[in-house]
Amino acid sequence: MALDLFSIRAAHERIRPHIHRTPVLTSARLDAACGGSLVFKCENLQKVGAFKARGAANAVFALSDAAARRGVATHSSGNHAAAIARAAKLRGIPAYIVMPANSSKVKIRAVEGYGGRIELCEPTQAAREAACARIIAATGATLIHPFENELVMAGQGTAAIELLEDEPGLDLILCPVGGGGLLSGTAMAAKSIRPQIKVIAVEPAGASDAAQSFRAGHLVPLATTNTIADGLRTNVGAPNFAVIRQYVDDIVTVEEASIIAAMRTIWETMKIVIEPSAAVPYAAILEGKVDVTSKRVGIIVTGGNVDLDALPWVKKS
Amino acid sequence: MALDLFSIRAAHERIRPHIHRTPVLTSARLDAACGGSLVFKCENLQKVGAFKARGAANAVFALSDAAARRGVATHSSGNHAAAIARAAKLRGIPAYIVMPANSSKVKIRAVEGYGGRIELCEPTQAAREAACARIIAATGATLIHPFENELVMAGQGTAAIELLEDEPGLDLILCPVGGGGLLSGTAMAAKSIRPQIKVIAVEPAGASDAAQSFRAGHLVPLATTNTIADGLRTNVGAPNFAVIRQYVDDIVTVEEASIIAAMRTIWETMKIVIEPSAAVPYAAILEGKVDVTSKRVGIIVTGGNVDLDALPWVKKS
Repeated sequence: MALDLFSIRAAHERIRPHIHRTPVLTSARLDAACGGSLVFKCENLQKVGAFKARGAANAVFALSDAAARRGVATHSSGNHAAAIARAAKLRGIPAYIVMPANSSKVKIRAVEGYGGRIELCEPTQAAREAACARIIAATGATLIHPFENELVMAGQGTAAIELLEDEPGLDLILCPVGGGGLLSGTAMAAKSIRPQIKVIAVEPAGASDAAQSFRAGHLVPLATTNTIADGLRTNVGAPNFAVIRQYVDDIVTVEEASIIAAMRTIWETMKIVIEPSAAVPYAAILEGKVDVTSKRVGIIVTGGNVDLDALPWVKKS
Repeated sequence: MALDLFSIRAAHERIRPHIHRTPVLTSARLDAACGGSLVFKCENLQKVGAFKARGAANAVFALSDAAARRGVATHSSGNHAAAIARAAKLRGIPAYIVMPANSSKVKIRAVEGYGGRIELCEPTQAAREAACARIIAATGATLIHPFENELVMAGQGTAAIELLEDEPGLDLILCPVGGGGLLSGTAMAAKSIRPQIKVIAVEPAGASDAAQSFRAGHLVPLATTNTIADGLRTNVGAPNFAVIRQYVDDIVTVEEASIIAAMRTIWETMKIVIEPSAAVPYAAILEGKVDVTSKRVGIIVTGGNVDLDALPWVKKS
């Protein structure tokens, strides 16, 4: 299947019983501060606390019964792992989750809480992939990659459909980019529904492979990244980049201090808990990297999974 | 005017352009933990970060033009002060706000941000009332008491109208009680719309004047209170208590540790920022003080104004 508006709408029908229709929130104070009209699509209020619930549910529920019975597998240390475990539990099939042994206990417990069968591995990409391949060979489970998967991309694009249903007149959508699953789905959905809309991606300067790739016209993977935005440390995927090159208007980068300031401002002003990755688009507004003056701007707030004992603005005792 | 469903519906029409229709949120995880079906009416996402925006807007916009021109006055250290300043600014009239000199800078700045004219006074009830009386004598401003005011009570009751529009089948509403403005409006609205509904109020054990008054059948004011739930330290008002005696089914109390645990659980699970006072109803569920098994339970989440540098679960450095 190809990623297009049809597949995203099909995803939306498929996952509707399994996800929250998340609210969109606005803030007169933030609007006054930037001169634009900001609409926040709150995927931090989504199941598992992140938009990842959408793509995972779509990929799991799209499986044939025969394939589903053999289960699903993925390697992830973050929200995708919990989302796959949850979707598999809803379908009543096994989920094999390969996690690096240094994953936080909170994340491991979240996956366990949804009944995921966890296999810990060395914290390298090669070890993850090898462990996953072994499980798939032994069980016949279907690999559901966190972003290099068109069903996942289509699922992530459903947030943009809802956003444009609630706010049809948007001029611009701001979206973070890590692997590019959300960005590719969002850009495809938004440009198909409203061709005149602009889609601008935002990335931490400390993990700017997508911005560099976008400028170069080919993938520029980074060996190391350095950002508090843990959801965005991944290099962009090849199928995602193909869509991004075609449908995204620009990719800008932001500094760490702006990400933390944006996160805190949104907690204080909007009274929602968002993770650092979710603060990255608003950081671009704070830095003046995106001109929002007099524009109606949709912002995908990607997730809210943070360790409340380690907030970036609290000095450690 | 009297507090009844008619006055609450009139308040709703009056304030609709000036407030957010706040979302209701649910959590499968919290439902599984308590065996009930919980619906959170998120007034932390309201203008000024609290339900107080409703009552203040109703009282300010109900004034005649002649009275409005002379302005409004109140004494408050909290969300009501900001809400009155904001409503007055929207109507284009002066707001005289008497605040204790030891109010936090954050709260003073919030009132200043809405253009309120602040007069600082000694931190005693007598000094507050004297300062307010002086201002009213000099200006002819109308006093808008934080809860002993039927327009304020009617405005606060509008959250329950929205909650029951979104969730008509509720068995029970849980609501914190401080001065009783929210509780009286909520109980009047809920029992009028759905007579079989139960309304149970929750109060910190360290400020349990409402619970004691409810048992005694007459007001039992406390000279001192001790609770982290700063919005609930006030003694219940006489007009509020009259409504509460008639329409509220029970008032239960909760311990400080439960309030902090409830606050943290809601931040972590629901990804919303709530203040300690807003965690009090869920604390009653955690303590087993209210039986929610198999019930559909509405919870008014009253506000989200907290100091992010002084979270109760973070050890100070």
